[in-house]
Amino acid sequence: MGRVTQRGRVTRFRLDGHTGTREDVLAGEEPLEIRLNGTSFTVTMRTPGDDFDLVAGFLVSEGVIWEPGQLISLRYCAGVDEEGKQTFNVVDVQLRPGTALPDTGMERHVYTSSSCGICGTASIEAVRKSSHFDAAGDNVRLPLQMLAELPDRLREGQKVFDRTGGVHAAGLFSAEGELLCLREDVGRHNAVDKVVGWALRAGMLPLRGAVLQVSGRASFELVQKAQLAGIPVLAAVSAPSALSVELAKDAGMTLIGFSRGSSLNCYSAPERIVAPVPAAL
Amino acid sequence: MGRVTQRGRVTRFRLDGHTGTREDVLAGEEPLEIRLNGTSFTVTMRTPGDDFDLVAGFLVSEGVIWEPGQLISLRYCAGVDEEGKQTFNVVDVQLRPGTALPDTGMERHVYTSSSCGICGTASIEAVRKSSHFDAAGDNVRLPLQMLAELPDRLREGQKVFDRTGGVHAAGLFSAEGELLCLREDVGRHNAVDKVVGWALRAGMLPLRGAVLQVSGRASFELVQKAQLAGIPVLAAVSAPSALSVELAKDAGMTLIGFSRGSSLNCYSAPERIVAPVPAAL
Repeated sequence: MGRVTQRGRVTRFRLDGHTGTREDVLAGEEPLEIRLNGTSFTVTMRTPGDDFDLVAGFLVSEGVIWEPGQLISLRYCAGVDEEGKQTFNVVDVQLRPGTALPDTGMERHVYTSSSCGICGTASIEAVRKSSHFDAAGDNVRLPLQMLAELPDRLREGQKVFDRTGGVHAAGLFSAEGELLCLREDVGRHNAVDKVVGWALRAGMLPLRGAVLQVSGRASFELVQKAQLAGIPVLAAVSAPSALSVELAKDAGMTLIGFSRGSSLNCYSAPERIVAPVPAAL
Repeated sequence: MGRVTQRGRVTRFRLDGHTGTREDVLAGEEPLEIRLNGTSFTVTMRTPGDDFDLVAGFLVSEGVIWEPGQLISLRYCAGVDEEGKQTFNVVDVQLRPGTALPDTGMERHVYTSSSCGICGTASIEAVRKSSHFDAAGDNVRLPLQMLAELPDRLREGQKVFDRTGGVHAAGLFSAEGELLCLREDVGRHNAVDKVVGWALRAGMLPLRGAVLQVSGRASFELVQKAQLAGIPVLAAVSAPSALSVELAKDAGMTLIGFSRGSSLNCYSAPERIVAPVPAAL
């Protein structure tokens, strides 16, 4: 088994008394340390795999990079553990000289003596990052039928979920409904970062006309990640939060929630959705 | 409406063509800045409410505190926004003199020049925090029937979920199945921190004999939060990760996943679960 999944033994208890042990497949979860120009920046728990995409997408989400040329190199640290094995859990990024390093202000876990921080700031300003791209001017139109099918198509593409039942997914679809990239991870945010990083490295940013379909709910941070990648439409299977809706409206993005096959809710910019005209009675 | 939920308008698209707009209730999500002894430490997105419990639980999860006397005071910063309103989004904690501040090493988003970090460390050692409590010696025995009912009882207690469909929950139950504390939040981790912080402030740590039931999956971090609160049994509705299982085994904790009413899976220390003997054939 690789590190994406691992085998383990599980005891299955049933109320009818049929209890037994069996082999089970578990989703991998390991720490990844990200270094920028050799200096440790953050550690995130993630499902191993597509690590370079994860790192690239994370940097897009932080507003640090927005084009592939800003990434000079991505490489695993060559260090080994006590058994002499490389862990592949540290990635060092060389950024193009002149690239501003991430803001280590309020979003960062850091000791500063900031005099005021967010206490005198409205919620959304306190946590917003400015985006290099503007989704508001994206005039893509998407058929309701196509949008309604995306959760099922995402689910069908989830290889790790099939084996473990334990990971989130993010899928990038074209305006024609073509699946461009699907990634899975124990963390919802990581799955999105992996997709965005893939697109950045493929030179596809901004993702005009694209739809990002996610398996969970639409948190503020997922809306922001989509915005920083220039994605005009974010669709979630579960609910958005109030702040997600506020950001989507402000950014001119279409935010869809409760996408459940026969219906979906749109919280912002519904004009991008082309719905069938009801049949005459 | 308060800040726990907010109203908004939503356009509901149905494939049968019946599309219309209606009022909707959304889960609140706002940033909370945590300051330690006046210095900014972190910002987390959370559903407003029970903020002092959230902060206290966060500090337990970080291994900074484990008894209520270590908290001298918790208070909201008195600053106001442009409209002259207090945001209630900044909490300042005064810790007892001598309390070691949180490790700002690998788990922290911080620029350091750590020479090696996690690259020469096995995964679990790299991210583990040492716990003040030991759950391994907790000999509590829990009936399978009671454990199997907890997800439904958690769901029944979710007031915000009922209105928004968009929040996670964590419920603390006694060994007799009594609900001690239930908290909801847009973030899974926050819901657990709110429960743990409530227990700390009530002088209940370590939570011997208790069960923590959560609505989502059992990530590594949730297992660690339970461990640092001295909770011997963590039960999740969805899957654990491989690292969660590794930590639970190492800490002598009982880890339950896929708890679905008629059956549940146990990944570690199943001896705490008392199952009925199968009826004779």
